[in-house]
Amino acid sequence: MSPNKNHLNALIECLEIPSISSSPKHKLELEHCAKWLQSFCKEHQFEKCEIIKTNGHPIVYFKHGQNPNKPTVLIYGHYDVQPEDPVDLWNSPPFSPTIKNNFIYARGASDNKGQFMCHLLAIAELIKSNAELPVNIIGLIEGEEEIGSPNLAPFIKEHQDKLNADLVLISDTPMFAKEQPSICTSLRGLVYVKFTIKSAETDAHSGQHGGLAPNAIIDCAQLLSKLKNEAGIIQIPGLYDDVESLSNDKKNTLNELPYSKENYCKTLGLKSTYGEETNHPYERLWYRPSLDIHGIEGGFNGEGSKTVIPKECSAAFSIRLVANQKSEHVKEQVTQFLLDNCPAHCEITINHHHSAEPVSISENAFGIATAKKALNTVFKKAPVLHGEGGSIPVVETFQKELGLNSILVGLNFQDDNIHAPNERFCLTQFEKGVEFSKEFLLNIEKESNV
Amino acid sequence: MSPNKNHLNALIECLEIPSISSSPKHKLELEHCAKWLQSFCKEHQFEKCEIIKTNGHPIVYFKHGQNPNKPTVLIYGHYDVQPEDPVDLWNSPPFSPTIKNNFIYARGASDNKGQFMCHLLAIAELIKSNAELPVNIIGLIEGEEEIGSPNLAPFIKEHQDKLNADLVLISDTPMFAKEQPSICTSLRGLVYVKFTIKSAETDAHSGQHGGLAPNAIIDCAQLLSKLKNEAGIIQIPGLYDDVESLSNDKKNTLNELPYSKENYCKTLGLKSTYGEETNHPYERLWYRPSLDIHGIEGGFNGEGSKTVIPKECSAAFSIRLVANQKSEHVKEQVTQFLLDNCPAHCEITINHHHSAEPVSISENAFGIATAKKALNTVFKKAPVLHGEGGSIPVVETFQKELGLNSILVGLNFQDDNIHAPNERFCLTQFEKGVEFSKEFLLNIEKESNV
Repeated sequence: MSPNKNHLNALIECLEIPSISSSPKHKLELEHCAKWLQSFCKEHQFEKCEIIKTNGHPIVYFKHGQNPNKPTVLIYGHYDVQPEDPVDLWNSPPFSPTIKNNFIYARGASDNKGQFMCHLLAIAELIKSNAELPVNIIGLIEGEEEIGSPNLAPFIKEHQDKLNADLVLISDTPMFAKEQPSICTSLRGLVYVKFTIKSAETDAHSGQHGGLAPNAIIDCAQLLSKLKNEAGIIQIPGLYDDVESLSNDKKNTLNELPYSKENYCKTLGLKSTYGEETNHPYERLWYRPSLDIHGIEGGFNGEGSKTVIPKECSAAFSIRLVANQKSEHVKEQVTQFLLDNCPAHCEITINHHHSAEPVSISENAFGIATAKKALNTVFKKAPVLHGEGGSIPVVETFQKELGLNSILVGLNFQDDNIHAPNERFCLTQFEKGVEFSKEFLLNIEKESNV
Repeated sequence: MSPNKNHLNALIECLEIPSISSSPKHKLELEHCAKWLQSFCKEHQFEKCEIIKTNGHPIVYFKHGQNPNKPTVLIYGHYDVQPEDPVDLWNSPPFSPTIKNNFIYARGASDNKGQFMCHLLAIAELIKSNAELPVNIIGLIEGEEEIGSPNLAPFIKEHQDKLNADLVLISDTPMFAKEQPSICTSLRGLVYVKFTIKSAETDAHSGQHGGLAPNAIIDCAQLLSKLKNEAGIIQIPGLYDDVESLSNDKKNTLNELPYSKENYCKTLGLKSTYGEETNHPYERLWYRPSLDIHGIEGGFNGEGSKTVIPKECSAAFSIRLVANQKSEHVKEQVTQFLLDNCPAHCEITINHHHSAEPVSISENAFGIATAKKALNTVFKKAPVLHGEGGSIPVVETFQKELGLNSILVGLNFQDDNIHAPNERFCLTQFEKGVEFSKEFLLNIEKESNV
């Protein structure tokens, strides 16, 4: 399936905008991207598209059809992207989309511009052939997903009238495997924390003071080293208390899914996997908490050398949560752990960043059957249901605030380097994504009529 | 003692030159500083001054007098300085010398421009009053001390004929305490190492891979945490094997020196000291090995958040060595420790940077008596003999290659923030330094005639 030129041009235009939500200096680029989306909707005759200001980056809201006898699909996506660092590891500039071997390389190619554009292009094509669709559509494309969507939940709470739908359709998870279409029915939650260890008011010379003055990097390393034991098991007291054991049924389902340790290691270039080796890898990725350190910085890291005793060291880490865990409770456990393990000669400042609750979606939820059929039609293979280790906080918000289930149909590949250098999206997947979206939107009415 | 205006102007000119030896982009500034020194010597009628090229930054060599019946003093200093980072913690620009409360603030103010300029200004004044000095003088001001003086030892070996002296005079250590003049007779050595832990070929998303993929920062933190136990004792096997216990005599001398834990902590803004609490603080600083981590960097450390599993993490640390330890042997111990403790799922690359051997100088060495007397005259107080925790590798080179002892007379204060933001030098110390140098040079002949 070769890429439709109009589809590709639209995607490239969208990817060229460096809409990095975590960087204050990119604020105008976020507005630029929202305006670009509005233009796209207008050009393709969507009935309505507005840019809604928030306290942060704007939300793009669109609508087409309002027949109360038809089901309403709410399409969600996010036009903001992760930072591009480390930029020197990219083979092509992150905001100059580059096509190579049937992949388009750019920040946001998979996460999430390439994926939500499948739905927008599908709607545009359906409108072009017949403005009267068999389904009402609402679109919600936000600009703050990568920073925890601080203004989306308030918007959803305040504007429930604008979001009257029967289900949410989201493509923001990877497909289970190449040539294996899939629907995700489980997401992990998240608690993200940054902290700084301070051991002195001033940096000092290691010759003059080494042996008497504490060293903030040693202190920070010793604190971090206690987060996990050497087997990779999280050591924060009570963290596993609320984690449910997996049923034997579910364990059997996991065993039926294809998994190759060799291939997995090859994808990331690992010598070995690491962690709870007695649990199934998919249990570890989807149904067990995990902890990762995202950054650490302290002292002198330039070229050459500097014999300094640094006064402070900072780090950031997060914990992925699974069904039954509550982010507020885990935050308390994390804070207590850090306070308990900070050496007496140091001070620690702790900042909790965004968090997300874990989510489960019933396998019988409205929309799952239509999605299965549409995937089968386009990919010529029955989809599998799977879990996902990442967090999409909005899925929990849709469930909690609007009572809506989300149908999570991922289109990118696992090795498309999201959040990493050389992010990409396969152009065949892109076209199949547009086809899947059309199939789904044309057929969802039938499921609602059963 | 208010500062002589000519002295101060000369010092300011020298401090304005950002001669950071570890930064390749400052190469021309090093040359600029060497030329400035040459001009100073010419202007003040030093008989000879030349700039000698090396494979790195140039050496400034000067000479005045060559009477074989007079003792020859070799003056050593270094015109290169440490990097200025973290630059945002400076209260005034590091290369715009700023005077406040009788201190001059600038990178290099104490380490080492302010201190060697005392000697150059003293020589200039002596020449002005009588070009025929009672002593021959040789000067050696290098530009690579802060990067381990890679080209100085080869220069000394090759040009022994140019360095025919009776002793070396160096001011590159701090004075023992405010209003307590001192002579340093012991220096620690150094082994400096950088390493990188790599756990994957690519960064990964912590949602997609958390629980299965290793995390280079955790791995690095666990490795670093093992360098010391929680009491601060170095855990590298065999490291203390060659360390001699201190004699009771020496322990008694240490007990006689003033020390206040409260004041020490106040100087650096510590809640407490840290390490071998059963040993005397001065034993820990001068006669015991110490280990400090100087830098660590991995993952995402920008504003906001990024849920990345970083593929690598780098750190730098050094060990201070004491009498009897050999840097080559300690390097081997460090390498073995890092290899033994690197997790099996990681790769480690190790880079040994500069090193220095520890040095002891006899309390009866030629020049000590004259230095004692000159200090007593200028500071109106008998000096104490002390050790120093830092390394001045050239002192070992002078001892080994030329058979010369170094008389180490420090003039800056312990809290002058060398290698840290807001480095400074007290202007009264600066003037007393010039006076001391004149006294020493005028009287050393008498000691040689005893």
